[in-house]
Amino acid sequence: MHHRLAFIGFGTVAVGLCEILLEKAEMLENLGLTYEVVAVSDMIKGAVYDEEGLDMTKLLEMASSGEDLGNYPTGIKGMDSLATITETNADTIIEVTYTDVKTGEPATTHVKAALNAGMNVVSTNKGPTVKHVAELTELAIQNDVQYGFEGVVLAGTPVLNLARYTLAGNNITGFKGIMNGTTNYILTRMEEGMSYEDALAKAQELGYAEADPTGDVEGWDALGKVVILSNVVLGKRISIEDVEREGITGISMEDIASAKASGERWKLIGCAEIEEDGTFSASVKPMRLPLSDPLAGVGEATNALTFETDELGPVTIVGPGAGKRETGFALLIDLLNMD
Amino acid sequence: MHHRLAFIGFGTVAVGLCEILLEKAEMLENLGLTYEVVAVSDMIKGAVYDEEGLDMTKLLEMASSGEDLGNYPTGIKGMDSLATITETNADTIIEVTYTDVKTGEPATTHVKAALNAGMNVVSTNKGPTVKHVAELTELAIQNDVQYGFEGVVLAGTPVLNLARYTLAGNNITGFKGIMNGTTNYILTRMEEGMSYEDALAKAQELGYAEADPTGDVEGWDALGKVVILSNVVLGKRISIEDVEREGITGISMEDIASAKASGERWKLIGCAEIEEDGTFSASVKPMRLPLSDPLAGVGEATNALTFETDELGPVTIVGPGAGKRETGFALLIDLLNMD
Repeated sequence: MHHRLAFIGFGTVAVGLCEILLEKAEMLENLGLTYEVVAVSDMIKGAVYDEEGLDMTKLLEMASSGEDLGNYPTGIKGMDSLATITETNADTIIEVTYTDVKTGEPATTHVKAALNAGMNVVSTNKGPTVKHVAELTELAIQNDVQYGFEGVVLAGTPVLNLARYTLAGNNITGFKGIMNGTTNYILTRMEEGMSYEDALAKAQELGYAEADPTGDVEGWDALGKVVILSNVVLGKRISIEDVEREGITGISMEDIASAKASGERWKLIGCAEIEEDGTFSASVKPMRLPLSDPLAGVGEATNALTFETDELGPVTIVGPGAGKRETGFALLIDLLNMD
Repeated sequence: MHHRLAFIGFGTVAVGLCEILLEKAEMLENLGLTYEVVAVSDMIKGAVYDEEGLDMTKLLEMASSGEDLGNYPTGIKGMDSLATITETNADTIIEVTYTDVKTGEPATTHVKAALNAGMNVVSTNKGPTVKHVAELTELAIQNDVQYGFEGVVLAGTPVLNLARYTLAGNNITGFKGIMNGTTNYILTRMEEGMSYEDALAKAQELGYAEADPTGDVEGWDALGKVVILSNVVLGKRISIEDVEREGITGISMEDIASAKASGERWKLIGCAEIEEDGTFSASVKPMRLPLSDPLAGVGEATNALTFETDELGPVTIVGPGAGKRETGFALLIDLLNMD
């Protein structure tokens, strides 16, 4: 499929995708994917639109050097997000603006506008999916376009595609996973004897954790992913209020040692289950896993997810949950899956 | 897609697929898969062909009770495999006869005949894929049909589809996995203190190991899978002679204890790698893995495979490697993937 792409937001993830598109043009063409970038609109970096297409290498150079995209040699400058969605000849929108899980904005407005305008959307933005995934998926179907959001759960580790395509034919009745790399990194260090405070500082130093780590360590990030997976994979219609939540800040060195002595490991587990009588429950909380659980061996910032299936029993996928190229790649998965 | 199916072989795996097809008819129709069974030909259970279609429930009853399929109330009886492939109105062949990895026969003849006759083939038979996967894949392309063999590696755990579709866009440069459930079961028991002999006896009692366990414990089964994955996923053209092989029979209780004391675990690992200079190496041999390796936590008869990808780093999938429904499901994956 040929795409005329418009980037709404041009930060790290967008750059990650652009790099892959440039470096792998030939491979992607063999996979049936060709493209041109016609527009970029970023609140800070500026905006440029050329219906004849933009030079992606030039765009990357400008973004990297901090030069305003308004200095691009051709095209129309300064169009905002909505104008870029509604007034360009793009047919596929890459929505990668900042994430606000509480309101879902401004990304939800962008996604809706694009779908209503008959454009495909691919996005790694958790905001719209946590808040409105069923509605937006329905809107895409009504407009005969596609809304891809593989990257909102485990970045490029293809959990949504695994559930939807590769495991098709199974009834998936639950899932359980390590969905936050920062907390898994901290727990891995604590198991080696480092204090929570030192492990957090180390995670911040490495760029895994933000200055205010609340979103990660109190389980909010994993919570959003549990909501998305429950709604997309288990077919529920829940919101964040429906999920029990507990972070890792209450785990002491004694808790870690006690688990270790029993051949177990603490992990921050997001999970949900539909029981045989239809009862649904979902939670994010620290759990002591036996070392025989495939999730127990997943250390560092790595993520993992186990789907409970009727034909195969538990099927687990382990892979990265963050990173520039890894998250950019998630957008590529969605582009490749469009038909 | 609508299939007119002919079963060549009607053993456990065929029955597993039939059960799924019957129980999940509605779900599968929603996924675009409809079917009728027009022929079954099994060396022991007999053969029946009815161009108007056969009653699958009746076929299952007959197979289960040991009644010869020649007693089926309608249709033509006694057609052998090749006649069933070439002289019926089937358009998709389910090849599930016995596996002979040394010669690849009779399955290779069946697969070739079907592809040459313009029929799709789905098969869990390792014989043809270990010996001739490149040739057969090419033959399918030439005849504009499809040859699916998801089940030859980890039964229904969808490793080939994961590599081909879900991870598309990556360069996969290597893999490493636990590809034999029997040996993994034995090693799990040995780690708990059981002797090799007792663990093997237990595996035989549970039906994991055959009376002559050589194929499993000496690494031949995993070896075949390494050959298939190398040729399909890494694009090589190797045969079993190109893979170093060592089984688990040389692992002593002292070896197990020594690994355990170092926080490691013995696993029978099949792996292959293309290095940056293009050098290729492949082996099946016992390895001591640190507990931080996702494969180390995979116990019992469970299988797992890690792909080394350029965009995502290592991506691991963990799931069953055998079983009636699990292997039958592999055939379903291939049927669902046809277009």
